[in-house]
Amino acid sequence: MRASYAIGLDVGGTRIAAGLVERKGRIVKETRCSTPKGGPFGVVDAIIDAIGDVAGGVHPSEIAGIGIGLPAQIDFGRQTVEFCTNLPLGGVDMRGLVMSRAKHSVTIDNDGNAAALGESRFGAGKGARDFVMVTLGTGVGGGVFIDGHLYRGHRGLGGEIGHMVVELDGHECPCGAKGHIEAYVARPAIIREAREVAKTFKGAGILRRADDDPERITAEIVVAAANAGDEAAAEIMGRVGHILGETLVGLVNLLNPQLVLIGGGIGESCPLIIERATQAIAAEALAGRRDVRVIPAELGNDAGVVGAAALAFDEHDSREGLHR
Amino acid sequence: MRASYAIGLDVGGTRIAAGLVERKGRIVKETRCSTPKGGPFGVVDAIIDAIGDVAGGVHPSEIAGIGIGLPAQIDFGRQTVEFCTNLPLGGVDMRGLVMSRAKHSVTIDNDGNAAALGESRFGAGKGARDFVMVTLGTGVGGGVFIDGHLYRGHRGLGGEIGHMVVELDGHECPCGAKGHIEAYVARPAIIREAREVAKTFKGAGILRRADDDPERITAEIVVAAANAGDEAAAEIMGRVGHILGETLVGLVNLLNPQLVLIGGGIGESCPLIIERATQAIAAEALAGRRDVRVIPAELGNDAGVVGAAALAFDEHDSREGLHR
Repeated sequence: MRASYAIGLDVGGTRIAAGLVERKGRIVKETRCSTPKGGPFGVVDAIIDAIGDVAGGVHPSEIAGIGIGLPAQIDFGRQTVEFCTNLPLGGVDMRGLVMSRAKHSVTIDNDGNAAALGESRFGAGKGARDFVMVTLGTGVGGGVFIDGHLYRGHRGLGGEIGHMVVELDGHECPCGAKGHIEAYVARPAIIREAREVAKTFKGAGILRRADDDPERITAEIVVAAANAGDEAAAEIMGRVGHILGETLVGLVNLLNPQLVLIGGGIGESCPLIIERATQAIAAEALAGRRDVRVIPAELGNDAGVVGAAALAFDEHDSREGLHR
Repeated sequence: MRASYAIGLDVGGTRIAAGLVERKGRIVKETRCSTPKGGPFGVVDAIIDAIGDVAGGVHPSEIAGIGIGLPAQIDFGRQTVEFCTNLPLGGVDMRGLVMSRAKHSVTIDNDGNAAALGESRFGAGKGARDFVMVTLGTGVGGGVFIDGHLYRGHRGLGGEIGHMVVELDGHECPCGAKGHIEAYVARPAIIREAREVAKTFKGAGILRRADDDPERITAEIVVAAANAGDEAAAEIMGRVGHILGETLVGLVNLLNPQLVLIGGGIGESCPLIIERATQAIAAEALAGRRDVRVIPAELGNDAGVVGAAALAFDEHDSREGLHR
């Protein structure tokens, strides 16, 4: 039987979003909550509550299953959480815990992979066989599509674009290594740069938007200032775009994709990032590869939810012997 | 009909190698010559001569076709030479020129791709579905295997590992861009570093091996000195390994391969490179990915010839409706 709905969850470090999703990617019912602090069981409780909220009134046989995107390294084949920086989920059998209580089959994946899958099926990546998605937010995530499929690598751990080296012995990355792109273009790096410039006359515009308190400078404030033409903010965000572009030059030379999608809270809100990244590729990628289009993702926060639902549909259909 | 032989050619900037190759990868007849200087027609003449040398005495029906690895950016789908730094072949219809004279079907590919295919079928990559090959020599080449297939990307231009960025605004690369790995670990970079250190007392050992003439220092001399325990040379080659390792950290995080093969004249001759690259991955790759094995390629100079032959076998078999 071809169930009509799947439940997709996007579990973040601060927020959980869940949706009841149709096969064509439309979210028919949605709920959001804060991610509980403390141990994994609070997170599982919140997930179960969210599932109850969106599944209410739908017959269980109409639900293909549950897909969950987690901010973690997932061994997709074994469906295990290998490592999780922002939540205490490392080594926890999230799939088993949710499945035993929700009475539906559960598929887990990395949140960046889920978002890339969402954009591929229902968003800006539709129809593209070879593309790369990069999400800029608190961290840098993403996914790699190769020949029409999300590439997961040997142990299902692929796609960590944020942890490619862009500078030898460079800034320290939250993962512990040095010089990774995430240490240059994610929220903490933007805030660090902005607080530095806010000490000078040049940063007056940024500081004013933060009520003259450097501690209240957020990445969103810097993006808004850059979009409004503030010179210092534009310099910071332009450099974010340039450094992202340098990584994309390497990715384009390595993988020759037809499309690069820029998503995530920061990526989607700042056109200057795409402008500068595009310039870097046009100037520095090898001949024949420069026609790659760099465009914004389309689905915003929904990408993770609909992508997670797509995981559940895929699992259901392959279990039932159905094909897309 | 399942032809027993293919002709593989490895065309380099200084040298052309050709072989008559059996289906199992054994080279039964081989020839080598210098790459003619001047225009493309001299190169084509030399290729035709080499084909004649190795094909002599074999009935044409026994030959599946001709494969050619070129030191160039190849649009594999269209079988065109997009760009070539070391030889004047950019835009030249190499496939058509050789085919019209050799009376066999011809398939061209990038030399790094051909070598990776050779190692995959007959060498150290046998049995590995997801692996990356990096060749260190005058330039840095390589190939990416994904799910058992050589990944070529949207326009067949993928796999240029040498042109990934490892340092922002770093050393200038022969391709014109800055900070690419090729500008740090290929022969010219090794020679540059060694000539620098040869000006000091520390470089006495290297200088002695070059008959006390800094201009005669070659990368091979530095590798030999490092292998013999010379401290300054070991420092240079150790840094090559470390910087290569930094790029591999990014690649491993991105693609999660099971295997990395290090090939090319420099890569195969210097164990220190593999040692240091392995250390960098062990220390800096994300959790769950550090089990990737970094090992030397096995086929040496033959990889390009047998890989090019494999291209010809594949083309022949798919044309004839045969499957491996």
